[in-house]
Amino acid sequence: MTNLESAHKVNFAKPRCFHTALKSGLKETFFPDDPFQHFKGEPLSRRTKKALQYFVPIFEWLPKYSLSLFKYDLLAGITIASLAIPQGISYAKLANIPPIIGLYSSFVPPLVYAIFGSSKHLAVGTVAACSLLIASTIEEVVHQAENPTLYLNLVFTATLFSGLLQTALGLLRLGILVDFLSHSTITGFMGGTATLICLQQLKGIFGLKHFTTHTDVVSVLRAIFSNRHEWRWESAVVGIIFLVFLQFTKFVKQKRPKLFWVSAVAPMVTVVVGGLFAYFAHAEKHGIQIVGELKRGINPPSLQDLNFDQKYISAPIKAGIITAMVALAEGIAIGRSFAIMKNEQIDGNKEMIAFGLMNIVGSFTSCYLTTGPFSKTAVNFNAGCKTAMANVVMAICMLLTLLFLAPLFRYTPLVALSAIIMSAMLGLIEYEKAYHLFKTDKFDFCICMVAFFGVAFISMDMGLMMSVGLALIRALLYVARPATCKLGNIPDSALYRDIEQYPGATGTAGMLILQLGSPIYFANGGYIRERILRWVRDEQAITDSKGNDVECVLLELGGVTSIDITGVESLLEVTRNLEAKGIKVVLINPRIEVMEKLILTKFIDRIGKESVFLSVEDAIEACRFSLKSSVQITGNGNA
Amino acid sequence: MTNLESAHKVNFAKPRCFHTALKSGLKETFFPDDPFQHFKGEPLSRRTKKALQYFVPIFEWLPKYSLSLFKYDLLAGITIASLAIPQGISYAKLANIPPIIGLYSSFVPPLVYAIFGSSKHLAVGTVAACSLLIASTIEEVVHQAENPTLYLNLVFTATLFSGLLQTALGLLRLGILVDFLSHSTITGFMGGTATLICLQQLKGIFGLKHFTTHTDVVSVLRAIFSNRHEWRWESAVVGIIFLVFLQFTKFVKQKRPKLFWVSAVAPMVTVVVGGLFAYFAHAEKHGIQIVGELKRGINPPSLQDLNFDQKYISAPIKAGIITAMVALAEGIAIGRSFAIMKNEQIDGNKEMIAFGLMNIVGSFTSCYLTTGPFSKTAVNFNAGCKTAMANVVMAICMLLTLLFLAPLFRYTPLVALSAIIMSAMLGLIEYEKAYHLFKTDKFDFCICMVAFFGVAFISMDMGLMMSVGLALIRALLYVARPATCKLGNIPDSALYRDIEQYPGATGTAGMLILQLGSPIYFANGGYIRERILRWVRDEQAITDSKGNDVECVLLELGGVTSIDITGVESLLEVTRNLEAKGIKVVLINPRIEVMEKLILTKFIDRIGKESVFLSVEDAIEACRFSLKSSVQITGNGNA
Repeated sequence: MTNLESAHKVNFAKPRCFHTALKSGLKETFFPDDPFQHFKGEPLSRRTKKALQYFVPIFEWLPKYSLSLFKYDLLAGITIASLAIPQGISYAKLANIPPIIGLYSSFVPPLVYAIFGSSKHLAVGTVAACSLLIASTIEEVVHQAENPTLYLNLVFTATLFSGLLQTALGLLRLGILVDFLSHSTITGFMGGTATLICLQQLKGIFGLKHFTTHTDVVSVLRAIFSNRHEWRWESAVVGIIFLVFLQFTKFVKQKRPKLFWVSAVAPMVTVVVGGLFAYFAHAEKHGIQIVGELKRGINPPSLQDLNFDQKYISAPIKAGIITAMVALAEGIAIGRSFAIMKNEQIDGNKEMIAFGLMNIVGSFTSCYLTTGPFSKTAVNFNAGCKTAMANVVMAICMLLTLLFLAPLFRYTPLVALSAIIMSAMLGLIEYEKAYHLFKTDKFDFCICMVAFFGVAFISMDMGLMMSVGLALIRALLYVARPATCKLGNIPDSALYRDIEQYPGATGTAGMLILQLGSPIYFANGGYIRERILRWVRDEQAITDSKGNDVECVLLELGGVTSIDITGVESLLEVTRNLEAKGIKVVLINPRIEVMEKLILTKFIDRIGKESVFLSVEDAIEACRFSLKSSVQITGNGNA
Repeated sequence: MTNLESAHKVNFAKPRCFHTALKSGLKETFFPDDPFQHFKGEPLSRRTKKALQYFVPIFEWLPKYSLSLFKYDLLAGITIASLAIPQGISYAKLANIPPIIGLYSSFVPPLVYAIFGSSKHLAVGTVAACSLLIASTIEEVVHQAENPTLYLNLVFTATLFSGLLQTALGLLRLGILVDFLSHSTITGFMGGTATLICLQQLKGIFGLKHFTTHTDVVSVLRAIFSNRHEWRWESAVVGIIFLVFLQFTKFVKQKRPKLFWVSAVAPMVTVVVGGLFAYFAHAEKHGIQIVGELKRGINPPSLQDLNFDQKYISAPIKAGIITAMVALAEGIAIGRSFAIMKNEQIDGNKEMIAFGLMNIVGSFTSCYLTTGPFSKTAVNFNAGCKTAMANVVMAICMLLTLLFLAPLFRYTPLVALSAIIMSAMLGLIEYEKAYHLFKTDKFDFCICMVAFFGVAFISMDMGLMMSVGLALIRALLYVARPATCKLGNIPDSALYRDIEQYPGATGTAGMLILQLGSPIYFANGGYIRERILRWVRDEQAITDSKGNDVECVLLELGGVTSIDITGVESLLEVTRNLEAKGIKVVLINPRIEVMEKLILTKFIDRIGKESVFLSVEDAIEACRFSLKSSVQITGNGNA
């Protein structure tokens, strides 16, 4: 039982005190990116300045701003403004609110984001999925047609809740929650929403006057086909022409990325051409509906419009929570992916605060939910924006539009807006991505499909929640059934690897080397115990026929990142069970946190310090030595 | 960039087909203990026999049963029967149902368990926590005082639901669900319940007639003190005498484990002495309440009493689900811990089926929820039981009691029952265990305390669910924030270990070796990306001052048990980001499932097969070689 002299020393140092462990745990949980790294060791004045720059990024980039940068931002800002006007009006229609609100929403929030946002490429604006989500949730308590003012007030209230939640999550550094919306969930959710919205736009294309307020494929299709008598061929022809035009410009962009601006200004062209056509052809008389009056003037305050009436409050809260999460997931993911292209860093929690403030201020100034939509941000990026100044330029363009041009948009035909929305949505149905998921990970594909079909056939929030639930179950299954494997020696080396993966690896007589992975704790303690015992049984079944027996079980713990009380108890049960069979249990390379817990729970005292090794070789050598010198003396004591 | 000849070959074998991977995944999830191992390669007749023996364990042990074994089981059976009578009556009182139901519940279920159960030591009976849980849940819809028949019928219905759920979980091999009730949760839940029940028993001790139906500490204490005018000193004196006697016998058992039978028969002695006292002293006239009439005869059928009325159904369903889980957790944990002492194996899923059948049959024969209570099982074990025959003996004793002796128990004073319950409950408040949790794992301690205070001050189901919820959050945190560490070379060896744990370990110039642990997937992909980039930044900050820069990042993946699409994308983002900085990324020892996913998603093609190594040494050697031969040529391509 003596340890060999040649073996490397295992660190049995005293466990760190609770305070140290807690501090490091909290830091890893809430500050994984160590945001305050730059402040360390600086004098107070510099630290204050840096902190201010950290929390309000405009202080960092504005002093260094130059005219040469502005040239780029000016161009980018005008380009995204030309996209913001048609999109603003269209998505506002989707949310069942007056189109002017869509324009308001591209004025104030971009200014707020320019101050607090840390992404250089993100363009602020409204998004289709959240617009529809708000509409479907608020419709549950108030019908827009019956009480449009109350409905609008609840939309503002929902935006406020969204903003408050986003700010709170950012301040509490709970960016971790957004991580639980996986790529697969988002792909499926976006695809489902896009399908739904496309079908809904058939209303506009066919010029229907009556429609359903439900947002599932079956209701929408039924509404379209049951109102066949309302179909107007004039509307449909115009709609299809616009749609073909928009899709063609996208095709051009795809073939020649340099001509990205063609597709960027296409919606604006559609709106202008559509408006001129409607004005001169008196389209309204031929069954083509138009947007109608748009008041001149900037955002009126809406603080007094916020409605906290207990009777309705549940709907804005629900809409606020769901849209906050979806908007964050979209905005942060997009900001991050463009930052990575330029090799910059985005702090998710800071972005949350920026989004939150933007929505809080928005809800006070007649705006509804905004985030960083993919389409607009991509256009911004391609147009060569350099800083958040592009958002300021866009806001100024919107200001001018609101002050002078807004009434001109009254002749915009609804069918043109429907074509714009449909064209944008068609790009969000990423069937190649779904196919890629199917090829590489069937479970991810399931998660994606649950979101897609859930959104399309049940409801948007249910679909999202079902998909997140499935992803969580998967996460829990991962931890409940961690992989274990049997190690063998790779010939001509000192390496021990999984014998399933490396079939050439050979076992060691009388010993069974098992590698455990992932944390061991209550959810998988029982499984790991059973699995180890099964490995031993299987090994005994093989060795029985050969005559030599398993006398040592070596547990490689290098991959075990942590262990809790239940986990330690499971190991203890394994040890007891195996010792009763005369099998010695040996631990190899426990990591620092595991070792601390094993020392605290006296597990190390129980098996003896001489049964813990730093490497598989050391352990094998020691076991061989003890097998030779004292076969089966140890281990029967506690049977 | 060429790989060195001396390096060991990495297995880039073609990924296993989906079917194989799915089959192995399902097997590990649902059949971790490989229950059908004995059937392989046997002829059909033997296989049928073995399968029958597997599903109905009595066929396995009964043919081998002998008189010498029966002697032990007879003694153990009589001992537990003497415990079952007072406990049955007491716990039935706790559930607000007629005491005779408690006796019925110790007759049929033990027989069913003897047929289907796989534990040799488990003694079947009712338990305090579940009795109170049923009462508190059913009271939500029907007050026992107002409609005792309906109340009783709903209790039977709850038992049926419990049994159905348990059987279904067992058949679906969802024993995994029980794993999510951690030891800490159970310790806290049991402690809280025991505290509550102890306080409730003050009702019996003080001889109160009016009491609350709420089950939280505040309501119970208020009920006791607001009814002070009902306190009867006669009752209190008798109660305290009994309690002292019972606690003394426990003390004797603790000091002399051989005298365990003293505490085992003590409750029976209490009941008999109490009954005789009540009979001869006409105790009822002195304010000491008695149990009252107990009908002679065995269990009447109760199939026709089951109530599925929509108006009430929610309560029995809720009670059924919660008690099923709690009963399973207690029964399986106890069966397993005694099996481990005797070095035997228990199949959790088979036990679930046995418990389920026992409760289904029980609900048809006027029994309420039964499981394997700790106290009774411990007595059974200590009394030397050898097989499930001890349960049969107990059932026969109960049969005789029901047929002949039941009416004699009508004089049992309620105060004696209260003393029995209190004494049993005091043993369940494991403050040493809570202290042990506090010393070893603060988070486990929190989980335990949430269960304890939740049960004591809110309600039993809320307390349980809050604690399980907290444990789940912890499980998700474990996977959302997996530990990463920087590896260094342990002097005079080829070992690379955590430099925090082994401060003597030295780094390698120009290289940063990181060890990742646990699965990489959507919940932690973002964190791992940020953490790796932070390690690189930190390393650069150190090396900057020394003059040499990080040129290679080596990721040790031996501890990563699986990876999903989001995880691969995170690695890809890391690679892109680091390559843009001119840093090369190298993978070391990916496990089989990770390697499959990396090949499928073309990540390996992206970084090149020559950037994957089997061991840290190989990787370091290759990196050193490529650094020397071509410094910083690679890696800038994608910037």
